[in-house]
Amino acid sequence: MSKPIENVKLVDPVWDRMRTEARDMANEEPVLASFIFATVLNHDALPEVLSFHLARKLASAEVSAMVLREVFEDAYDADPSIIEAFRADTVAVYDRDPACDSYLQPLLFFKGFISLQAHRIAHWLWSQGRKPMAHFIQSRVSELFAVDIHPAAQFGKAIMIDHATGVVVGETAVVGDDVSMLHGVNLGGTGKEAGDRHPKVGRGVLLGADCKVLGNITIGECARVGAGSVVLAEVPANCTVAGVPAKVVGCAGCDEPSRAMNQIIEENGKNGDGI
Amino acid sequence: MSKPIENVKLVDPVWDRMRTEARDMANEEPVLASFIFATVLNHDALPEVLSFHLARKLASAEVSAMVLREVFEDAYDADPSIIEAFRADTVAVYDRDPACDSYLQPLLFFKGFISLQAHRIAHWLWSQGRKPMAHFIQSRVSELFAVDIHPAAQFGKAIMIDHATGVVVGETAVVGDDVSMLHGVNLGGTGKEAGDRHPKVGRGVLLGADCKVLGNITIGECARVGAGSVVLAEVPANCTVAGVPAKVVGCAGCDEPSRAMNQIIEENGKNGDGI
Amino acid sequence: MSKPIENVKLVDPVWDRMRTEARDMANEEPVLASFIFATVLNHDALPEVLSFHLARKLASAEVSAMVLREVFEDAYDADPSIIEAFRADTVAVYDRDPACDSYLQPLLFFKGFISLQAHRIAHWLWSQGRKPMAHFIQSRVSELFAVDIHPAAQFGKAIMIDHATGVVVGETAVVGDDVSMLHGVNLGGTGKEAGDRHPKVGRGVLLGADCKVLGNITIGECARVGAGSVVLAEVPANCTVAGVPAKVVGCAGCDEPSRAMNQIIEENGKNGDGI
Amino acid sequence: MSKPIENVKLVDPVWDRMRTEARDMANEEPVLASFIFATVLNHDALPEVLSFHLARKLASAEVSAMVLREVFEDAYDADPSIIEAFRADTVAVYDRDPACDSYLQPLLFFKGFISLQAHRIAHWLWSQGRKPMAHFIQSRVSELFAVDIHPAAQFGKAIMIDHATGVVVGETAVVGDDVSMLHGVNLGGTGKEAGDRHPKVGRGVLLGADCKVLGNITIGECARVGAGSVVLAEVPANCTVAGVPAKVVGCAGCDEPSRAMNQIIEENGKNGDGI
Amino acid sequence: MSKPIENVKLVDPVWDRMRTEARDMANEEPVLASFIFATVLNHDALPEVLSFHLARKLASAEVSAMVLREVFEDAYDADPSIIEAFRADTVAVYDRDPACDSYLQPLLFFKGFISLQAHRIAHWLWSQGRKPMAHFIQSRVSELFAVDIHPAAQFGKAIMIDHATGVVVGETAVVGDDVSMLHGVNLGGTGKEAGDRHPKVGRGVLLGADCKVLGNITIGECARVGAGSVVLAEVPANCTVAGVPAKVVGCAGCDEPSRAMNQIIEENGKNGDGI
Amino acid sequence: MSKPIENVKLVDPVWDRMRTEARDMANEEPVLASFIFATVLNHDALPEVLSFHLARKLASAEVSAMVLREVFEDAYDADPSIIEAFRADTVAVYDRDPACDSYLQPLLFFKGFISLQAHRIAHWLWSQGRKPMAHFIQSRVSELFAVDIHPAAQFGKAIMIDHATGVVVGETAVVGDDVSMLHGVNLGGTGKEAGDRHPKVGRGVLLGADCKVLGNITIGECARVGAGSVVLAEVPANCTVAGVPAKVVGCAGCDEPSRAMNQIIEENGKNGDGI
Repeated sequence: MSKPIENVKLVDPVWDRMRTEARDMANEEPVLASFIFATVLNHDALPEVLSFHLARKLASAEVSAMVLREVFEDAYDADPSIIEAFRADTVAVYDRDPACDSYLQPLLFFKGFISLQAHRIAHWLWSQGRKPMAHFIQSRVSELFAVDIHPAAQFGKAIMIDHATGVVVGETAVVGDDVSMLHGVNLGGTGKEAGDRHPKVGRGVLLGADCKVLGNITIGECARVGAGSVVLAEVPANCTVAGVPAKVVGCAGCDEPSRAMNQIIEENGKNGDGI
Repeated sequence: MSKPIENVKLVDPVWDRMRTEARDMANEEPVLASFIFATVLNHDALPEVLSFHLARKLASAEVSAMVLREVFEDAYDADPSIIEAFRADTVAVYDRDPACDSYLQPLLFFKGFISLQAHRIAHWLWSQGRKPMAHFIQSRVSELFAVDIHPAAQFGKAIMIDHATGVVVGETAVVGDDVSMLHGVNLGGTGKEAGDRHPKVGRGVLLGADCKVLGNITIGECARVGAGSVVLAEVPANCTVAGVPAKVVGCAGCDEPSRAMNQIIEENGKNGDGI
Repeated sequence: MSKPIENVKLVDPVWDRMRTEARDMANEEPVLASFIFATVLNHDALPEVLSFHLARKLASAEVSAMVLREVFEDAYDADPSIIEAFRADTVAVYDRDPACDSYLQPLLFFKGFISLQAHRIAHWLWSQGRKPMAHFIQSRVSELFAVDIHPAAQFGKAIMIDHATGVVVGETAVVGDDVSMLHGVNLGGTGKEAGDRHPKVGRGVLLGADCKVLGNITIGECARVGAGSVVLAEVPANCTVAGVPAKVVGCAGCDEPSRAMNQIIEENGKNGDGI
Repeated sequence: MSKPIENVKLVDPVWDRMRTEARDMANEEPVLASFIFATVLNHDALPEVLSFHLARKLASAEVSAMVLREVFEDAYDADPSIIEAFRADTVAVYDRDPACDSYLQPLLFFKGFISLQAHRIAHWLWSQGRKPMAHFIQSRVSELFAVDIHPAAQFGKAIMIDHATGVVVGETAVVGDDVSMLHGVNLGGTGKEAGDRHPKVGRGVLLGADCKVLGNITIGECARVGAGSVVLAEVPANCTVAGVPAKVVGCAGCDEPSRAMNQIIEENGKNGDGI
Repeated sequence: MSKPIENVKLVDPVWDRMRTEARDMANEEPVLASFIFATVLNHDALPEVLSFHLARKLASAEVSAMVLREVFEDAYDADPSIIEAFRADTVAVYDRDPACDSYLQPLLFFKGFISLQAHRIAHWLWSQGRKPMAHFIQSRVSELFAVDIHPAAQFGKAIMIDHATGVVVGETAVVGDDVSMLHGVNLGGTGKEAGDRHPKVGRGVLLGADCKVLGNITIGECARVGAGSVVLAEVPANCTVAGVPAKVVGCAGCDEPSRAMNQIIEENGKNGDGI
Repeated sequence: MSKPIENVKLVDPVWDRMRTEARDMANEEPVLASFIFATVLNHDALPEVLSFHLARKLASAEVSAMVLREVFEDAYDADPSIIEAFRADTVAVYDRDPACDSYLQPLLFFKGFISLQAHRIAHWLWSQGRKPMAHFIQSRVSELFAVDIHPAAQFGKAIMIDHATGVVVGETAVVGDDVSMLHGVNLGGTGKEAGDRHPKVGRGVLLGADCKVLGNITIGECARVGAGSVVLAEVPANCTVAGVPAKVVGCAGCDEPSRAMNQIIEENGKNGDGI
């Protein structure tokens, strides 16, 4: 006998935990209770929460929340992997960000996280050929959160965009699973030609604050790019690069720098963890 | 017999094209039709469109859209060159940005473009001695779009500010015609003294992402400043500079780097275009 | 015989001056009169003005202005040093920023200033154990002004954050009195471990645009960090550092670089003022 | 072979006509095009239109449009007769109101019509035991449209409430099919006791402006109540009553006074139509 | 030599007086200063004030204030008699309403006055064949102020609509100069036939609270209709009618009952003024 | 030893009951939880709740909620009897209205109740000589709730205004304790003369729907005025009047008709309760 459909929601541990945290937060901070009820507790499942929250964030005099929410719900219905990625991103931020101690914080308070969830919808719209609508989402996210990701850019799962202000990701960029990037990261292009012209970032990479990676180059898996670097050439897997222009300063990094989140680069390319 | 005034609007090719694009977009994407009608199709001429759109963007509980729109219309009536520059900027972005495939996109979706159009009004207000109002516009643009341009700064025509987050331009800066700049560009000053203390950027220059040009120095025509550079000294015309602090890395650039939009700088100062 | 309490407001010179400036500005620019009356002239004392203005800025569909204002007034009642710091910050910006010629401008028009005043409330909330509410304020400021300061970060008085877009300050950072920082400054951490992991910035320091200071290191009093630098090691007092990674380029700075606001760094670490 | 479900919408003549009228209106009056697209043309079926429009009308800082819309859509899913009644009401108003020349007008412009559609949702909520939510809808409608209908009151189909200001209908009132009522009509109770205490209005009745019908009395089918009357006793079918208190002034009315909409009452109970 | 055009505004005594009153009110009540500046003092002439104020009142998520204001300004430009009537209405209310002691009060605080000014625009739109836009204005006024006047209804000048809730005026109604009406007045029709079917109200008439005048009948000049009356037949000039249905109770009224504003009707049709 | 001040709130039974009801309602109807938290549960005492709720209701683009709330709190601080009357009104509505089964309903859902609470503030403002502010409140209430009460009108305690649309009360009217009135009640004046010209309504009176009482006449204690009546002469205590014009139809009424809420008037002036 198959599991009844009604139970599906009951086995969503991310959602269960968020609801518990939401109840605790509403009790702990009555000033936020109204916000938390409207955003989280008033809903039955994660997609509802996300469509509600994103729609309220992105709404304006130009396009209302109700209209946006319809679009978002269409996306979630058509491509369940968007909600899967939302779960994975949530857990990733919780794991990696020392300033994050709940599953609820990224959704409610981290604009990099919200920007990424909005991008996932813009990307779906782009894939459906709805370019103006995709550009509209991109534009609103850029205005609201100072995060400018082209709708065509491809992102894996379990991504963290920390602090986020100034992040710019171009049309043909690809970002692998488990990547972490800080504010000001730029995955930029090489001119006005169309075609494949943006970076490909491998699994587990850490992109430091304000680093610029320019052109159709590959950042190998688990590589690390130092804060403020300007990267104009391939970066081998597991290596650390830094400087303007960036040079390799070491290649014995931890398995996944995106998890360690260590931006400090010693002269020898090692960091305080003894790399 | 002179041409009747009523026909003037009929020969505005930018406006004609925008209207056609707007109709197509409204048909293609019904979700945006309401927005497009209110912003574009409901109007008779470019200045109306621009005053409406900017006023709605910059409106707040502090100063309403209606009040702002009066100010903007006064500016357009008094100085028709503002609308001329708007046309030139539109064409420039369309020409240079590979992610832009219509005249309508910059107006509707590119915050760098909108910020520049708002600055042109702030600059006019400043020229009229209305400093508080000019500061108010500057402040709203900085809050909304993360673009902070002092009202006194002088901009030519056919300018593109791409992605735009974090752009800061000081009081005595001058930016020539046909310049392109990316996000994070800073045309900064040299201390707290008043007086002429900010860069002068020549025609056709390309300012790469996050580059800082500091002090009353000249960036020669058609020069190119690498992403992330810190420029503290004059840059000769047609040359490329890069690094922290920036050094000349080549001087045989294309005629107008601002059009090629190539930020990649090879070791020898050349780029993929064969510079 | 003790001075009657009613007179206390009469001897607040910052407030007196602001009111005078506000009346002048309302007369000079009728378009702003409504905004100025609502924000300044309608109130009796500085805390009222600040709670009103911040609440209106930070309000959203999520948490209303009225609700926020109650929180802000509680903070001012509980910790009068917040308003003291507001006064000191105002005077500091007026003194140091050549683009500022009134006490009113920072409050009305400078998002770095407003962000800092909001942070002071978030910090108080954090100190009271109200972490979710503190995160909420941090989050709104990051969304609205692109300034992301962890509520636990400690700021002295007479601080200026100029232009402000992209500033990121971590949890265990400490910023001394009289510090000036420009947009894009990052006082960042060293990984995902908890504990004391962010910079300590001494009194009178000037942090140039887009500089990154990473890790639990000390920037000595009256030091100067060049624009775009990446600082990974201690900086001695009175010294200037620059570059990626930053190196000492001179150590005979002015008494308080934060006041001189000179970001230009000569090869020998001196600047145009003859340092 | 059964008709495919996708075709269901194609055979909704009310919706088809509304869309056609909406397109014509948007062409005829560009100022309203944005409103008409958002409200009508952006949707695929009547329930979507109605839930969108009602939610936008009833939204406030207290409960947002998105939240209300969910409730309304739940109602339409659970009880399709609500949409059936919406169609019948539309046709009824179009037939009876000489100032109405389209199916779209009642929805867009007639507050009596909108109030009734909101009541139908409040009534469904009441039937589900969701009394506070039902009271909330009642309360919003009373505030917005000055129409106060208790959620428990029962309304048939093809009802017209013309002009509508001041209509008050009590808890145990029943209004039959095809009834027309004007502004100020009161179907009131008889004291503070609970129980069945409000009027029962038969099919086809016309209730004139500002008439008051008080107590658990029956207004017989196709009766007519004169403007300004106070009715305290049963009214036989097909009769006309008028005065304070109301008396029968004639009993040979038209088949359905609610269709003739004639409020003029001659001394002999006849009207200008020769009744 | 002709008077320069710039002086035209200087000789508008209604506007001059309003400005003086506005300045006094802003000084007297700082809480309202912001509202008064935005609404009155920020403008140069009466049409600007009126278009601003009406647009702000009638604005909604459906049609924005900016869009409405354009329509209103078109009306004032095309038909200057609308502003003339606004002046006459202002003086009329000031003269007749004992609760009114300034020219500013009707504009700022009296919804009957505002409704009438909005109707004058709706009527102009109707005369231009813009029926949907006229219905939209009618609809907004009915929602906002509970005053429902068909756009085709004709109103003279120097009209007062006091308290105003529940006023309903039909399509072919005509209201002469100098008429006063109270809340709940209904100039209603006689059925669903099109054609001339509503009352014609002569100059100087006073229509008491909640009176209903039904059908294409004439209320003679300077007649008086008692509160709560239902009028189904012609009323001779200078006479007073009352009751349900209304009967003549006297015919020696004052010259203009609309000025005396006396609703009290003695048994003999006289009132306390000795009529 | 005196009772500590902190305990004062603990002995407010109306507030205690409201909080309990609010918690139940939030649990019962999650859709309203956010509204209920913001309006009730987020606060510590009745005056906070009332100032918050009224300010949110009366706020507009013209005067913000924050500004209004300051005014309301000043009123409550200055005159505690306003909150006392709020408690008495709450209990009165709960006792008399069969459609009301909680203390919370009047505050959240009954516009007559809210209008009265707003009037109490307008009346205080009037007593302080702040006439423009008092008129502003009156005006907002008339727009929002269709209840127009002159700020100078005097109301006792334990008043119920049921349904409320169209209520108009003049400047010199006096309404005693324990009065109930329904929608459309008019306590009107007698012309344009200033001076004492409005009704005086005694304790315990019931004013039926749409009745008009005109002139400086007295309605004796515990009298009853029939729905739709026009009263032009004194009404003795304990008597019932009805008709146009109203005549005495009986004088053996219940002790307080305002509590029985019976509008039905038999031919002999008795009602179904056997009066």
